[in-house]
Amino acid sequence: MLTLYGMPDSGNCYKPRLLLAKLGRPFRHVAVNSITGETRTATYLARNPNGKVPLLEFEDGRFLAESNAMLLHLAEGTRFLPADSHERALVYQWLFFEQYSHEPFIAVRRAILKYPERASQATPDRMQQLFEGGTKALEVMESQLAKTPFIAGDALSVADIALFAYTQDAGFAGYPMDRFPHVEAWLERVRADEGHVSLEWLP
Amino acid sequence: MLTLYGMPDSGNCYKPRLLLAKLGRPFRHVAVNSITGETRTATYLARNPNGKVPLLEFEDGRFLAESNAMLLHLAEGTRFLPADSHERALVYQWLFFEQYSHEPFIAVRRAILKYPERASQATPDRMQQLFEGGTKALEVMESQLAKTPFIAGDALSVADIALFAYTQDAGFAGYPMDRFPHVEAWLERVRADEGHVSLEWLP
Repeated sequence: MLTLYGMPDSGNCYKPRLLLAKLGRPFRHVAVNSITGETRTATYLARNPNGKVPLLEFEDGRFLAESNAMLLHLAEGTRFLPADSHERALVYQWLFFEQYSHEPFIAVRRAILKYPERASQATPDRMQQLFEGGTKALEVMESQLAKTPFIAGDALSVADIALFAYTQDAGFAGYPMDRFPHVEAWLERVRADEGHVSLEWLP
Repeated sequence: MLTLYGMPDSGNCYKPRLLLAKLGRPFRHVAVNSITGETRTATYLARNPNGKVPLLEFEDGRFLAESNAMLLHLAEGTRFLPADSHERALVYQWLFFEQYSHEPFIAVRRAILKYPERASQATPDRMQQLFEGGTKALEVMESQLAKTPFIAGDALSVADIALFAYTQDAGFAGYPMDRFPHVEAWLERVRADEGHVSLEWLP
């Protein structure tokens, strides 16, 4: 059975949980708290030298890091990754967009507002910079979702799962979601897709 | 023929150039300067709403953004992407590592030192934060390259191309490369691989 090491309330850790739940694939979950240093122990760093969660352990003892790499790997041959080469390339595009242009703003602003340990980072300049970067990411999503029902085209893919993870908390993180009606409608479409589970769900 | 819109001295834009050169695949190059606002025009934003380079245009007029998405797409069925599912997953892992844990530090520190327009960002706090993040990324690469000749295993893949793009300038960006002998040896292995071209090369 697969083992997923993760922090239950992290959006990045939620991504593979959501996909595994939708695939009906059983897995063991091991809670690891990156805020209290559990990802910096020698044991953990031997498994993932980058010291991050989530981390996936396969039946044969091999490991895979990076939430979006897990999504691509686990989605192979399923409805969550298009068979058409160009459609699949667009899924890649949005997965990299998520990690470079979306998560470093929206996930970080959410974390600063959510975790008391990070409250000292809430300087006006930093919060404004995170607001601007995240707003730009939501604008890019809004322009795409005005054209297609899901972010990479007509069907839900792992790119939607990746972007859903933190976009669902963008309102909490202080972004003006009423400016992004297509994003809000898309959030509902992702929630309505078969087999959806919320961030709180654990196996 | 493919058209690549890019900034000649950007590492992200160099990645698809290097792969296309190694594949012997002809393409047209259109220089776009993101620093002087050429990626923020209405024409450009219609092609890529995220307003970034590189951008790939296919023969049929469709577009693909995100350098690492281009690498995965163009490498399909070639020696640059492993056929084995787990080996390919490790390539995904390192591509996301590059965009999240490497590029935002090493590429940014390089840009601040290289472009006069960005010199005002060179505050001591910012430069130190970029130094620490980039050093950590190089440490993670060093630990992997002590075990395998290429970053995702025994053969050169698009993960090496992605990481080479800015690691080759890490010394210029102020990182102590003498602490990373396996990274330095790997840079030479990547340069020695068949069909290599330097950052300056254009078709």
